[in-house]
Amino acid sequence: MPVTLNTSDPDFEARFVRMLAGKREDATEVNDAVAMIIADVRARGDAALCEMTRRFDRLDLTPDRLRFSPDEIAAQVAKVGHEDRAALELAAERIRAYHAHQMPEDAEWTDRQGATLGWRWTPVSAAGLYVPGGQASYPSSVLMNAIPARVAGVERLVICVPTPGGVANPMVLLAAQLSGVDEIYRIGGAQAIAAMAYGTETIVAVDKITGPGNAYVAAAKRQVFGRVGIDMIAGPSEVLIIAAGDQHPDWLALDLLAQAEHDADAQSILITTDPGLGHAVAGVVDRILPTLSRARIAGASWRDHGTIIIVRDLDEAAALSNRIAPEHLELCVDDPESLAAQCVHAGAIFLGPYTPEAVGDYASGPNHVLPTARSARFSSGLSVMDFLKRTTIARLSPGALAAIGPAAMRLAAAEGLQAHGESIRQRLIRLNERPAP
Amino acid sequence: MPVTLNTSDPDFEARFVRMLAGKREDATEVNDAVAMIIADVRARGDAALCEMTRRFDRLDLTPDRLRFSPDEIAAQVAKVGHEDRAALELAAERIRAYHAHQMPEDAEWTDRQGATLGWRWTPVSAAGLYVPGGQASYPSSVLMNAIPARVAGVERLVICVPTPGGVANPMVLLAAQLSGVDEIYRIGGAQAIAAMAYGTETIVAVDKITGPGNAYVAAAKRQVFGRVGIDMIAGPSEVLIIAAGDQHPDWLALDLLAQAEHDADAQSILITTDPGLGHAVAGVVDRILPTLSRARIAGASWRDHGTIIIVRDLDEAAALSNRIAPEHLELCVDDPESLAAQCVHAGAIFLGPYTPEAVGDYASGPNHVLPTARSARFSSGLSVMDFLKRTTIARLSPGALAAIGPAAMRLAAAEGLQAHGESIRQRLIRLNERPAP
Repeated sequence: MPVTLNTSDPDFEARFVRMLAGKREDATEVNDAVAMIIADVRARGDAALCEMTRRFDRLDLTPDRLRFSPDEIAAQVAKVGHEDRAALELAAERIRAYHAHQMPEDAEWTDRQGATLGWRWTPVSAAGLYVPGGQASYPSSVLMNAIPARVAGVERLVICVPTPGGVANPMVLLAAQLSGVDEIYRIGGAQAIAAMAYGTETIVAVDKITGPGNAYVAAAKRQVFGRVGIDMIAGPSEVLIIAAGDQHPDWLALDLLAQAEHDADAQSILITTDPGLGHAVAGVVDRILPTLSRARIAGASWRDHGTIIIVRDLDEAAALSNRIAPEHLELCVDDPESLAAQCVHAGAIFLGPYTPEAVGDYASGPNHVLPTARSARFSSGLSVMDFLKRTTIARLSPGALAAIGPAAMRLAAAEGLQAHGESIRQRLIRLNERPAP
Repeated sequence: MPVTLNTSDPDFEARFVRMLAGKREDATEVNDAVAMIIADVRARGDAALCEMTRRFDRLDLTPDRLRFSPDEIAAQVAKVGHEDRAALELAAERIRAYHAHQMPEDAEWTDRQGATLGWRWTPVSAAGLYVPGGQASYPSSVLMNAIPARVAGVERLVICVPTPGGVANPMVLLAAQLSGVDEIYRIGGAQAIAAMAYGTETIVAVDKITGPGNAYVAAAKRQVFGRVGIDMIAGPSEVLIIAAGDQHPDWLALDLLAQAEHDADAQSILITTDPGLGHAVAGVVDRILPTLSRARIAGASWRDHGTIIIVRDLDEAAALSNRIAPEHLELCVDDPESLAAQCVHAGAIFLGPYTPEAVGDYASGPNHVLPTARSARFSSGLSVMDFLKRTTIARLSPGALAAIGPAAMRLAAAEGLQAHGESIRQRLIRLNERPAP
């Protein structure tokens, strides 16, 4: 049984705060090793990549074989069965449709002083997507990262995916193909991040790097940040389910277990007004857990981080949810829309009994790269915005400068910036010498 | 005279690349000191803040005096003269109007499968703004950070501003008042960032921290990132002016100097098709420089980083501009709109001769917190978006789950995530047992 808390218990607040503060990941000390890897890739380029790929992935490469050739991709992709391909295509299409809605609009207007103002969105020129190798090599993650970049209009899209022992994942390559990826390199780890950030003889540097990875990849992303843009550094995944009323305990239990099977550090939380439902769900979890192929992982997660919280009413549930700021929030209640309106800090909300979080991981359309570890308080999931940037635009007419300039000169003087004021004053002098056009 | 480059010179590319790669700031090794300060504030709270304020700002405080009282604010604000107040009010009003245009809209739609999808924007609950003390205590910076937060709907807005020797900046306090700031604390440095990120007995923690600062403040922001959101870590400021045709050399020279007077590490670049104009501008800079109150700073910046580049045509100018990805881009050419369309990587563009960058620093409306050091390739200036986050929404009808679920199950199987698939399958079984509602 996991921790069960009840808001009516006198020690609830202390125990809830302890749960919130609980660190679910060791801050592995990999920074120094990663700094050396990055320096080596910067200094020796392709040679360093080949050497590290030999060492870490047991794969002998030469610089001309860092990149998958079109024939190699075609051969791998041909291995994917018809149904798997159809599933990937449906997911890709839905993800594309959702993200197309996200494209922001440029704006421009002229105010009554004669200042034409606005902004313009433009895509990042080149983006690099990291895809982990081995067990965590998820084709869905390729779709979720690459499609928003393509929708945003990124010109050049690169993937790095390690192939330990030379074994590639055909579904990952097909997902890359369906997403319109231009270049795929069979390298991984911090060395792949370094190559994408700084470039080598073979790999041209990109401007933005996204995608999940292990502690080395995460540390490398932190270290190259500034040189290139990065997405978030994701922590372990988490789900919060708020349930009340007539719900199926087995559906709720499976949703909790779907989170738990990701990772021993993942966290599944159920908040309910009904102690009987809480008890029933816990019972189903215990019954199903041993039958899962990833029982060891899911069991550790549920034992160490699983939590059931009994609350007095749904207002209390929403208040706790806002303090948890969950990555995934599932609302299995009679009126999920009303409850959703109260839940203001969450990465993604899944409403009603027919929206299991698992369908959102793959195919409902919204992105599955979401803020973890309470960062939904201040950040958002991956979107086309991560591959766009905004340039502000201003054009002042002579009349607008005459109207606004004196205030700017006054503030420049207050801040002791003389040339600032003078650059405006000289223009105003000229304007006064002749009738404004 | 600064560096003058000409794209027709045989060594142009090598020299341009050297300029791009030039580091303009020493990576001061302050990380360890900052880590100790943060740990101390977390451990001892207000007591640590008071002790450090005594040491660094020569100011004796007790916890009850960390915060400016309403009377203290009123007394300081009363010192601001009428014209300075009017200038701040005009700037605040224009900044507010510009940022109100930026508010993004929520979206929701139902697709033909019966999936209701969309997203919702909500504000960060509490934001903290850092304002440097002493010389760099800029009231304009308060407006540029605080007003977007207020427009976004942030509930609680906090400022930390050190008052060395107990001396406050009345304009800063007035700017805070005009922006609707709720709490002002007279603390600075890494300790202020730590207090806003982790909270103390007196200061309740915030969710997002923005604002400029010295190397200690920047290092502290990096270290608390993840616990709270932060804005960018800004480098030295820079301007690129592209000039052609009949331009006033003195206006261009003053715009270059306005950038240079910020900081000895600031960079001013002029690109022109006209060697004669380049020569004339350099001459005016040399003439005006010694007359400036900040001649030492501006002189060092111009000598060490100032650059004039002679190009064959404006297409070449736009291509170089895109490689520089300048923070500020001023287009003083006959048809600035056409040229702006070619310049796709820039923080802010100022079009035409009557839009000096200095007016944008204060009062044109767009934000003056902009990406530096080539990061306009992948990031944007401060906006209301920095104080909002997006929650994605999905609600599937039973029919939508029936249509999408099987593809998700297929992909879950391919990724080896059994409970994911099972959470969908159990629902589909139930749907098949009875007619869909």
